[in-house]
Amino acid sequence: MKFNPVIEHLKVYEPGKPIELVVRDFGIDPRDIVKLASNENPHGCSPKAARAVAEASHLMYRYPDDTMMHLKAGLTEKFGVTEDNLIIGAGSDQVIEFASRAKLYGGAKILQSEITFAMYQIYAAQCGAGVVKAPGIAHDLDAMYDLYQKEEPEIVYICAPNNPTGDCLDRVDIENFIERIDPDTLVVVDGAYQEYAAFKDPRKALDARALVEKFPHVLYLGTFSKAYGLGGMRVGYGIAQKEIVQALYKLRPPFNVTTLSLVAAEAALRDEAFVEMSIRDCFEQMEAYEAFARDRGIRTIESYTNFITFLLDGVADSTALADALLRRGVIVRDLKGYGLNAIRITIGTADDNRRFFDETAQILDNETA
Amino acid sequence: MKFNPVIEHLKVYEPGKPIELVVRDFGIDPRDIVKLASNENPHGCSPKAARAVAEASHLMYRYPDDTMMHLKAGLTEKFGVTEDNLIIGAGSDQVIEFASRAKLYGGAKILQSEITFAMYQIYAAQCGAGVVKAPGIAHDLDAMYDLYQKEEPEIVYICAPNNPTGDCLDRVDIENFIERIDPDTLVVVDGAYQEYAAFKDPRKALDARALVEKFPHVLYLGTFSKAYGLGGMRVGYGIAQKEIVQALYKLRPPFNVTTLSLVAAEAALRDEAFVEMSIRDCFEQMEAYEAFARDRGIRTIESYTNFITFLLDGVADSTALADALLRRGVIVRDLKGYGLNAIRITIGTADDNRRFFDETAQILDNETA
Repeated sequence: MKFNPVIEHLKVYEPGKPIELVVRDFGIDPRDIVKLASNENPHGCSPKAARAVAEASHLMYRYPDDTMMHLKAGLTEKFGVTEDNLIIGAGSDQVIEFASRAKLYGGAKILQSEITFAMYQIYAAQCGAGVVKAPGIAHDLDAMYDLYQKEEPEIVYICAPNNPTGDCLDRVDIENFIERIDPDTLVVVDGAYQEYAAFKDPRKALDARALVEKFPHVLYLGTFSKAYGLGGMRVGYGIAQKEIVQALYKLRPPFNVTTLSLVAAEAALRDEAFVEMSIRDCFEQMEAYEAFARDRGIRTIESYTNFITFLLDGVADSTALADALLRRGVIVRDLKGYGLNAIRITIGTADDNRRFFDETAQILDNETA
Repeated sequence: MKFNPVIEHLKVYEPGKPIELVVRDFGIDPRDIVKLASNENPHGCSPKAARAVAEASHLMYRYPDDTMMHLKAGLTEKFGVTEDNLIIGAGSDQVIEFASRAKLYGGAKILQSEITFAMYQIYAAQCGAGVVKAPGIAHDLDAMYDLYQKEEPEIVYICAPNNPTGDCLDRVDIENFIERIDPDTLVVVDGAYQEYAAFKDPRKALDARALVEKFPHVLYLGTFSKAYGLGGMRVGYGIAQKEIVQALYKLRPPFNVTTLSLVAAEAALRDEAFVEMSIRDCFEQMEAYEAFARDRGIRTIESYTNFITFLLDGVADSTALADALLRRGVIVRDLKGYGLNAIRITIGTADDNRRFFDETAQILDNETA
């Protein structure tokens, strides 16, 4: 059968190894597995959200309220925007998909940093668009601007903080960059980990409302998957001026967020204490990772997220280390596929992290012995 | 901002009015509202599925198992197919979306019956494809074949049973039709309500495995939204030969089905007793609708689904009746938008249905008084 020619060039996205498959492949007791690969909140989700969902589970037969009025009310209050500024997706991924389909047609291009969230280019490829990458581990805004002028992309992506490296641009640098971008180019500012960055350093904190008020061509992205602990429920959102939101809305399939995902996100939004606890503990735990890396001569990237990246040149091969950890039941993300000899480790609970340190130390000591 | 020109022509999908908005608009007590508009299972979902989800609600922080191994195991067993034949979507809607994006590019067309599921043409429009409609309330396969030859569509849709009319083609007629369609044309056979049709009349029962074994160009669709009572959780599936499944898989976003949706669907699949009870009761209740319609001189379409369509010519205006019912707290679907002076009513519980009969009788008696 003949298919759309763009499909030929598409690859299937490789997600973090599910715990169940590790169990199956290596015969490891599920209780002994530590998953530090997908930047899930190690404290789980808000107990209030879990309770709200448990109590609503008999309502699964009902189609979701497709106007999402309650969740929108919560988000407009949180951000000080109006409903017209808001679109809710099945994860912020889906908002990236809408943006891609809205802007990328007929030989379009996107511009992104070389090592950043993989979905930008995956959706671009689905639309048959080209991908222009500014080189470097961190976002190099000067290089990006040069490429912007030369390549005239339809979408520019800024991931702040950046995944999978953890670093973060300053707000003022982002704004100065956006100011120079033509208003017909969509600038997507991906704030999936903003709650962490804003907590750690106010210079990194973005104000979504101020951004979209100032810039008619900005689409800000947020998610419930990280600090809010709802990665499994697929709820994210885009904030932009009305014109952009209306265009994306036309590409939104009805009922794109499930009935229980709405219940979960609404409850999670009302439990800011859980979010703050999660973030505070994350950065306390991160100190142990920094100390471990220092002791071992491993370079790290300063992280404004719930994960940390170990740069392994001169210490180990990232794929070999990730594989050895996997066989011991510790799952991390190898970044070789991004062109980095590095692993990305989600900051876990104190117990999770101790396990990572012990296993990694044993592996590294064996190798150099 | 300039957008993909296909967006200009897109409309936003108008879903059934959510109960919450009716409450807000008319100040009606939520307990007095009867929603018979979205073909939800009036018995809710399987209590076993609800329990499984309640017990798993603390796992919402975890990304879904993106291999969906457990749900796939259940479906391969149910249908006697292999994993290679299976793709799971956020509702069967999403599988329609994948099929549209896979086949519709560069001036493509779809062919469908005039009055059928709205999403076929909505996704076609998103892909900039044309929509060819065979006239008539029911699928007219001869007219469809003539149009197929003349218009050379890339996708042909058969909805069996058909939504929003409720009628259903015989299996043998569907197979004879597909036999005449070129193997490069994708034939989507939408079996969203097949569980109901197969129960009522074995001549309407489709065998997904036999269909896709016989026809390399068939994509069969099923869903957990109707008989399985999980409309809010967005789980559907496509069954086809491996070549088609692989192409669609490349367009599947990662984590397209939520963690709790997987739990719910797996549990629902193990509770066939609930499904059978739901279907049996549906057709028992439907007799009351048929009797009511006969008494009132309202024509109906023989239904093989969990809803019934009242054809109102000579009796009432469908929009006026639907609005009057809405003001009394009874929500049905007006089919004026499909070009029919008709309403579609989901078969509810005995209490729901009695309420519909009482309110409708009062409205009709007042109008003719």
